[in-house]
Amino acid sequence: MKHKTSTKDLQLSSNERLFIESGSVFKPKNYKNFKPQGNKIYTFHAGFKKKYDDLLIIIFDSLVNVECVYSKTSTPSAPIIWDKKHNNGKCKALIVNSGNANAHTGKKGIEIIKHYSNILSKKIKCKKNEILISSTGIIGEIFDPKIIINQINKLHFKDTTHILDAAKAIMTTDTYPKTSVHKLLIDNEIINIYGFAKGSGMIQPNMGTMLAYIFIECKISNLNLKKLLKKNLNSTFNSISVDGDTSTSDTLMLFSLNKKNINLKKQKNFKILSAAIYDIMFNLSQQVIKDGEGLSKLIQANVFKAKSKNQANNIAFSIINSALVKTAIAGQDANWGRIIMAIGKSFEKVNQNKITISFGKNIVCTKGAIYKKIDLKKINRYIKNKIIKINVNLGIGNCSSTAYGNDLNYKYIKINADYRS
Amino acid sequence: MKHKTSTKDLQLSSNERLFIESGSVFKPKNYKNFKPQGNKIYTFHAGFKKKYDDLLIIIFDSLVNVECVYSKTSTPSAPIIWDKKHNNGKCKALIVNSGNANAHTGKKGIEIIKHYSNILSKKIKCKKNEILISSTGIIGEIFDPKIIINQINKLHFKDTTHILDAAKAIMTTDTYPKTSVHKLLIDNEIINIYGFAKGSGMIQPNMGTMLAYIFIECKISNLNLKKLLKKNLNSTFNSISVDGDTSTSDTLMLFSLNKKNINLKKQKNFKILSAAIYDIMFNLSQQVIKDGEGLSKLIQANVFKAKSKNQANNIAFSIINSALVKTAIAGQDANWGRIIMAIGKSFEKVNQNKITISFGKNIVCTKGAIYKKIDLKKINRYIKNKIIKINVNLGIGNCSSTAYGNDLNYKYIKINADYRS
Repeated sequence: MKHKTSTKDLQLSSNERLFIESGSVFKPKNYKNFKPQGNKIYTFHAGFKKKYDDLLIIIFDSLVNVECVYSKTSTPSAPIIWDKKHNNGKCKALIVNSGNANAHTGKKGIEIIKHYSNILSKKIKCKKNEILISSTGIIGEIFDPKIIINQINKLHFKDTTHILDAAKAIMTTDTYPKTSVHKLLIDNEIINIYGFAKGSGMIQPNMGTMLAYIFIECKISNLNLKKLLKKNLNSTFNSISVDGDTSTSDTLMLFSLNKKNINLKKQKNFKILSAAIYDIMFNLSQQVIKDGEGLSKLIQANVFKAKSKNQANNIAFSIINSALVKTAIAGQDANWGRIIMAIGKSFEKVNQNKITISFGKNIVCTKGAIYKKIDLKKINRYIKNKIIKINVNLGIGNCSSTAYGNDLNYKYIKINADYRS
Repeated sequence: MKHKTSTKDLQLSSNERLFIESGSVFKPKNYKNFKPQGNKIYTFHAGFKKKYDDLLIIIFDSLVNVECVYSKTSTPSAPIIWDKKHNNGKCKALIVNSGNANAHTGKKGIEIIKHYSNILSKKIKCKKNEILISSTGIIGEIFDPKIIINQINKLHFKDTTHILDAAKAIMTTDTYPKTSVHKLLIDNEIINIYGFAKGSGMIQPNMGTMLAYIFIECKISNLNLKKLLKKNLNSTFNSISVDGDTSTSDTLMLFSLNKKNINLKKQKNFKILSAAIYDIMFNLSQQVIKDGEGLSKLIQANVFKAKSKNQANNIAFSIINSALVKTAIAGQDANWGRIIMAIGKSFEKVNQNKITISFGKNIVCTKGAIYKKIDLKKINRYIKNKIIKINVNLGIGNCSSTAYGNDLNYKYIKINADYRS
């Protein structure tokens, strides 16, 4: 069996490039694209945004298995409340709008979803609980469901499109679309995996903290989808934070298409698949953090030799979320005192005299004090890089963890102080 | 018995005013000052800072009772390690330097303290554990104790000074000195209470998160000092946060002088005293938060009708520490969606449909959605104020809490990205 799928970099018009890439330090040189079989992607300009597409509808050829992870927020958006209540692991269609999060919209927000998902379920002849919903954008504003319904009514006249358009349609303050595509061979079958994501601000784990959709071109049970998520979530989407702010809408959906059957009882097969899922999740989450609002540098905090995974994780996040660490990195200042502060404010029990900290390979402190052979010239050169690795060896155990954050600079303020105006 | 104490506002030279007040939105119009009896205040320009005094030594006429609260950080500074190990509630002298925190300086940092406190203890003939030490400034840099010793040697030639000079000598990025003075009558005795504090960045509770020294002009047992601290800490110093970053050096010291005896077994007396201590602690902590680095607006988050004090507190801090709430306030944008987000990311169990939020008296949302009679004109006028009160009524209990924070703006970035350069 052969597929007419294509994995290629997209050629964008200069205008498109300008819009998408303006200002991003880590702007991708090219974008992975993919036009899937087995599901149909439609994008629309519904009117949530002034220009640009803001509505995505994906219709699956047949009912597919899906597993979702949502924000742990205690003030979830209407789509999260809806999906959690209705969906039971089967999906026929997905509707995502950007520009309005339908969050803290009370009963009205739920009625809005009921209204437009009803229209779609009649149109494509599926049950209402087979439609998944996401929304991203402004919190607290009620919108007229007709904005979406008007587009649903145009579905049959629309051409299908590819994942890059899907990624663009769900963007908010993102400066570039985020897509990822993998091809792998299992039991002599070629399996495509592809996904897209959005996210730029309000990014701190507890779960994935943005919207991400990943599709696997083979049949996988819900149990195995769950396993794949659990195995790969912490080291990918749950390892990033732009601002420590957890969104009301964060959602990750992992879909399995009914295209091929592979034997996942073979441990080897599961491992190959899981590694590919990791790659795609890591890749998408890195694109999200690298597009962190206003980012000029990526901060990677690696904590080694902690007493527990949890301790390593808390300290890594305490570092990348510290306003003082983030501003120091923005100012290209290897101010390691602030890293000591950030370790301390995690309140994790450490032995201060065993801590070694380095920027990249350049040690700044060890045995509880400044490193005697500290090479400030080298460090000042290192701190000018776009990716700053802060390595913390706690010297008290065997566990490690990595967290990814960004610097805090004028541009972050500009974006977030002017967001609604 | 009569004292020659004076409580008056200080007249500063225009240059002094310029230095102290530049850029602060909440710059005090005048400063409380007080020249104490019962202890001698000396300030010096030791050389940690380029200009301005940077060393404070206070010598008590006799051994006094003291109780201290320190940062809960797991990477405490050398002075905190030293004080905690040696001091047993009695004090003859206090040494505070600004410009170098003597933090993460390992055994060397302890030796430095040993060296200079030894010199002082010989000079004033007291035990080494009767000298309390604080340091604030850059973390991780070792300094030569001679910088301090040289000044100790000049002690006998120095004139004593007042608390405003003390407050100035311990400033780092503060834009104004912070003093507070109270006079109260207990059992027909006039009791002066006075204090000073510093703090501007790296401010988030878990304990007081700056340096603060308060002196009560009467004899109080250590047990009662502890009670006074415990009763008043949470609603004062522990209710503020500039940036969520907990310092390695935060210290609050409450001294009782051996000047007068009052009967604190009388409940009424203890209440009067405790209320005065609250006033002085609240006043100093408000001066600290109002001098938050770069601050243009003070944010006061009041959480009402929570299930527990702890829940109210967590939500109040989640709001004032959210980068997105802080930038919205900086941009004069009453973006209440971000407050919903901040409530959610506390992960406290709430009933979203019972939440009412208002800016000042202006309701923005109620019953889980936007307020039908929302008055955007009034809200947009309100948000231009210097003090923004965010009121959150959770509607699920009877507990409340207040937290004070500041906005996040260009100036905070400027201060913290350029701090060492």
